[in-house]
Amino acid sequence: MDLIEIKKRARQRLKGFCRVCPVCNGTVCAGEVPGMGGLGTSSSFTANVEALKALRFHMRTLHGVTSPDTSIELFGRSFTTPVQAAPMTGVVYNMGGDMSEAEFIGHVVAGATKAGSAGWIGDGADPAMFESGLEAIKASGGGIAIIKPRSQDEIKARIAKAEEAGCIAVGVDVDGAGLVTMAKFGQPVSPKTPNEIAELVQSTSLPFILKGIMTKEEGKIAAEAGCAAIVVSNHGGRVLDHTPGAAEVLPYIAKKVGDKLTILADGGVRTGSDVLKLLALGAQAVLTGRPLVWGAFGKETEGVTTILDTMKAQLIGAMLLTGTADVKNVDKHILV
Amino acid sequence: MDLIEIKKRARQRLKGFCRVCPVCNGTVCAGEVPGMGGLGTSSSFTANVEALKALRFHMRTLHGVTSPDTSIELFGRSFTTPVQAAPMTGVVYNMGGDMSEAEFIGHVVAGATKAGSAGWIGDGADPAMFESGLEAIKASGGGIAIIKPRSQDEIKARIAKAEEAGCIAVGVDVDGAGLVTMAKFGQPVSPKTPNEIAELVQSTSLPFILKGIMTKEEGKIAAEAGCAAIVVSNHGGRVLDHTPGAAEVLPYIAKKVGDKLTILADGGVRTGSDVLKLLALGAQAVLTGRPLVWGAFGKETEGVTTILDTMKAQLIGAMLLTGTADVKNVDKHILV
Amino acid sequence: MDLIEIKKRARQRLKGFCRVCPVCNGTVCAGEVPGMGGLGTSSSFTANVEALKALRFHMRTLHGVTSPDTSIELFGRSFTTPVQAAPMTGVVYNMGGDMSEAEFIGHVVAGATKAGSAGWIGDGADPAMFESGLEAIKASGGGIAIIKPRSQDEIKARIAKAEEAGCIAVGVDVDGAGLVTMAKFGQPVSPKTPNEIAELVQSTSLPFILKGIMTKEEGKIAAEAGCAAIVVSNHGGRVLDHTPGAAEVLPYIAKKVGDKLTILADGGVRTGSDVLKLLALGAQAVLTGRPLVWGAFGKETEGVTTILDTMKAQLIGAMLLTGTADVKNVDKHILV
Amino acid sequence: MDLIEIKKRARQRLKGFCRVCPVCNGTVCAGEVPGMGGLGTSSSFTANVEALKALRFHMRTLHGVTSPDTSIELFGRSFTTPVQAAPMTGVVYNMGGDMSEAEFIGHVVAGATKAGSAGWIGDGADPAMFESGLEAIKASGGGIAIIKPRSQDEIKARIAKAEEAGCIAVGVDVDGAGLVTMAKFGQPVSPKTPNEIAELVQSTSLPFILKGIMTKEEGKIAAEAGCAAIVVSNHGGRVLDHTPGAAEVLPYIAKKVGDKLTILADGGVRTGSDVLKLLALGAQAVLTGRPLVWGAFGKETEGVTTILDTMKAQLIGAMLLTGTADVKNVDKHILV
Repeated sequence: MDLIEIKKRARQRLKGFCRVCPVCNGTVCAGEVPGMGGLGTSSSFTANVEALKALRFHMRTLHGVTSPDTSIELFGRSFTTPVQAAPMTGVVYNMGGDMSEAEFIGHVVAGATKAGSAGWIGDGADPAMFESGLEAIKASGGGIAIIKPRSQDEIKARIAKAEEAGCIAVGVDVDGAGLVTMAKFGQPVSPKTPNEIAELVQSTSLPFILKGIMTKEEGKIAAEAGCAAIVVSNHGGRVLDHTPGAAEVLPYIAKKVGDKLTILADGGVRTGSDVLKLLALGAQAVLTGRPLVWGAFGKETEGVTTILDTMKAQLIGAMLLTGTADVKNVDKHILV
Repeated sequence: MDLIEIKKRARQRLKGFCRVCPVCNGTVCAGEVPGMGGLGTSSSFTANVEALKALRFHMRTLHGVTSPDTSIELFGRSFTTPVQAAPMTGVVYNMGGDMSEAEFIGHVVAGATKAGSAGWIGDGADPAMFESGLEAIKASGGGIAIIKPRSQDEIKARIAKAEEAGCIAVGVDVDGAGLVTMAKFGQPVSPKTPNEIAELVQSTSLPFILKGIMTKEEGKIAAEAGCAAIVVSNHGGRVLDHTPGAAEVLPYIAKKVGDKLTILADGGVRTGSDVLKLLALGAQAVLTGRPLVWGAFGKETEGVTTILDTMKAQLIGAMLLTGTADVKNVDKHILV
Repeated sequence: MDLIEIKKRARQRLKGFCRVCPVCNGTVCAGEVPGMGGLGTSSSFTANVEALKALRFHMRTLHGVTSPDTSIELFGRSFTTPVQAAPMTGVVYNMGGDMSEAEFIGHVVAGATKAGSAGWIGDGADPAMFESGLEAIKASGGGIAIIKPRSQDEIKARIAKAEEAGCIAVGVDVDGAGLVTMAKFGQPVSPKTPNEIAELVQSTSLPFILKGIMTKEEGKIAAEAGCAAIVVSNHGGRVLDHTPGAAEVLPYIAKKVGDKLTILADGGVRTGSDVLKLLALGAQAVLTGRPLVWGAFGKETEGVTTILDTMKAQLIGAMLLTGTADVKNVDKHILV
Repeated sequence: MDLIEIKKRARQRLKGFCRVCPVCNGTVCAGEVPGMGGLGTSSSFTANVEALKALRFHMRTLHGVTSPDTSIELFGRSFTTPVQAAPMTGVVYNMGGDMSEAEFIGHVVAGATKAGSAGWIGDGADPAMFESGLEAIKASGGGIAIIKPRSQDEIKARIAKAEEAGCIAVGVDVDGAGLVTMAKFGQPVSPKTPNEIAELVQSTSLPFILKGIMTKEEGKIAAEAGCAAIVVSNHGGRVLDHTPGAAEVLPYIAKKVGDKLTILADGGVRTGSDVLKLLALGAQAVLTGRPLVWGAFGKETEGVTTILDTMKAQLIGAMLLTGTADVKNVDKHILV
């Protein structure tokens, strides 16, 4: 019931920037960047959803799992759910602007924290975006800051601010290298060499995350550069058309570097089943984005919490019927 | 003609809870639980239908089969058709409530019995559901009772009642372990360990059935626990999103334990062709559910009988054109 | 232009019994038997079309083929096109009855003959159907009679009549064994044993055809029984739901018995490309049905001729761009 | 913004001959020849688009590519983009006639030249088409003339005119052998033997191009006949229904003769991603057609330039996120 109300209100407040479709798969909003869609034909957004959809569970009910454990440890903190809040910015041009950037990220970080999760904040063309994210993290007593692949000095300056704000980890979404809109605002971004990544890792005492890894080769580069974690992600399909879905490449990356760093994944996560699938493929935690936009626009902080709580409940249901006792140790054989 | 009238009236009386679509595949009613749909994205409901659709027959007409035999023996009784009536409850919240729980199950069990089949009854949050089912079985002189995976004592108490009511077999739908709605009504359900299953088997002299088996490993557990039969089933796609279709896993399960217990299957059975396909994959009998809802709402007891008679006629037609003489011995090579 | 007019008028006169869709694939008319659709879910009708659609040509233009030869020899006669008119009956209940059975088959046989092809006639519940077909053949100086799988005596009586009418070949559509409507009219049909087929072959001096072969095993039975030809066909998807398309099984049958008897095929033939594909898969000639209904209802005899002439022109175009000089010797490697 | 305006105006001026669909894949315009559609079922048009769509990129951002080079050398000239303007004629019957043939080809050739590309001109039933193309090439100081597969003498006469007009290369679109409309206007075309091709090659000092090669065998014939280049193409799906897409056959052809002549490709090229994919499959340059019709009808010469500039910008974006430094050396491993 509550969820229906949240989605209904979000649909109104998002003014068509997001239609809050019954199935959120990038079809209706194809090409809407800015907006909430996938870039170009939206094939990379759609691939995220389709890749998850293609995975299926062996249903099992003859076992002793009756109280599944959904808690994880991440960057030295404990969380009661393996789902974290993906970094998102651009409320005005991506979401219609019915709340301010600061209000939005405030709801996301606070709502995630209340749900036993953590809020990640992003970086954008307007420097105020990153600042308002850090304010939200300060207010909630923790969170993770992701910085665009700017010049080394610009990144380091932001890492310093993130440290001050009490972030538990910091990182760069290297796939943002394709965000040409950034350059238009005098904030150029670009690919990063392995050496540049290593330099950033060494510049901070916080765990360093690379977000936007889609090949095992780049997973290896991240590990060798000393990264604490990577996020397997195609940026929600918003930076390059025609990539695989995250769930397609995740197992290869996990096999290659799963023992060397922490692996997170995002892209198309809508339900607890999606969460369990990514964990089964080798992720230690997952991120979700668009559903939290619905939560924040539909019922502010409480809406974000409700979305994450719902996913946790669905996750528990799926764990019960697959015989999965603990999200920290998900058997890949629960997948067909 | 008659069938068209039955569906038309059912469409009206079901008030949109079921649209009685031309092709019943879980698409339109996706997520409608309660209701008649599949859980979540309805992928498990759809998988049942798609898996059957993907199977095709070698058409053969140069042979001597002119009077196919559709009769089977099951739990010591003879039936003239291999299609049984799947257990269904929740007339008010799943079907719109235009008839009472007792009326509905009465029509299903009586109609099935008249068609030379047997009616299965289910268990639900309201204890009256199981009771009205037993009444229907008493009235028809036989039937099968399926109990939710409640506490061992609760199940045993219901088994005792089923014995008294003259059931020819009794069982538990273990996949009901995912029905969180049950707990809300103070009727908790959960997965069952192999030992718990064995205990239930030993508690009754009736043949014991496990409904909701989707892996060969759990088929083996059922056999070792002494079950007389299993039903390969994903609960019509209503308990876990993203499972395979029953027809996909059936052959593996049949190969593993087909010689150790009786195998039944359900999920997506709409026509006599579907029946023949499941028999060819290793089932000894099949269950059908939603079509009997149309029958009961469309023309009460007679409607249920008509639906089952129609399936039998279609089954005979498909047997003729595949050279299948007897449903008790279906050659898997009739499938491409 | 002319073709558009023919289809437009046919659409009107067929009164919705056939919609003359832009793409004729059995989707809109699914289940319309009687009518022009496929049985049940129409999957066998659709499979015919999809199987042809899945085949693709290697386009080749660096060769010396500038005047492709489309002529064939069949049952001792010469034809200028490899496309023959499939046997069809039931104008009233299948096509809406805007012309009589006699008019319809008259247009089909005459139109086919004028196009350098031959008309095949069918058999139905009403004995007048077969009679009117024979009249049409007499009037056109030749054609082929296909008889339903009735009792041996009934078939032999019809073979005798076909001989008298000047048929160039005669046969039985054994897949008609599934036409339960026949029995309702006191005209039972059934599968035939290999011995029964041999008896029929020996009862006539005309070449004997088995129509409705979909497996290589039954192709072998036909050859051993002395049949002159088989038609690989699922009866346009009208007798058994869920069979493969004719083009899927044709190559296996052709490999098995292509050197022992003449192989024809039908099912989904709409254009000259379809014709060339079936020839490449091993058929010596093909039959087309539904398009001739459009021809007959759209412009009577001339309409039938126009449809067949159009297919021949398309066939020539496809032969030019695949480097195929002669329909009597089509290289299977023109297919990808 | 500009692109939206261009497409909007083009949609109006093209009068439904092309709907300028959001996704241009041959579905809506199926069979519209004349018109802008694919022949018959449009399967060859659609195959071009689908084959490109099926290819996906490994996203990579940990590298040093920050300024991708899009320049190529072709037929002794330098171009700043690897995308050339495909030859197109028939403005009146294919595009609705809202501008003249001369105006159209003038805009295409001038717009392409301004974009650092080259304009290709075509040949048609009306000799004025080829003449107006040559005028456009003269006015822009270069371009490429493609002649229909007419008689040898007719082709040679046109080659001579192309030489005079200052063409940088000349060729024949052999797949035009299937354009039966040409014969209706007394301008017969036909397949060409290898010897005829060699004769044409030797008749001119200009580089000679064969357009419409879809097999490696014919690629080899082209190389042995002395052709400077081939265009892997199914003529935009307009001459033979049911061929593969160009991107499907390109890698086989490139492997066979990529070291013997220059390979270009077209078919379904809509974005810079499509361009990069064809280059990765072995093309040295690509052609695009329909998008330039939108450009020319939407904003004349400037519209054509805008379309090509947009593709170049998209190409640069895709090169950045795949780590591709230079279009002259695209690693096939950027594709999944």
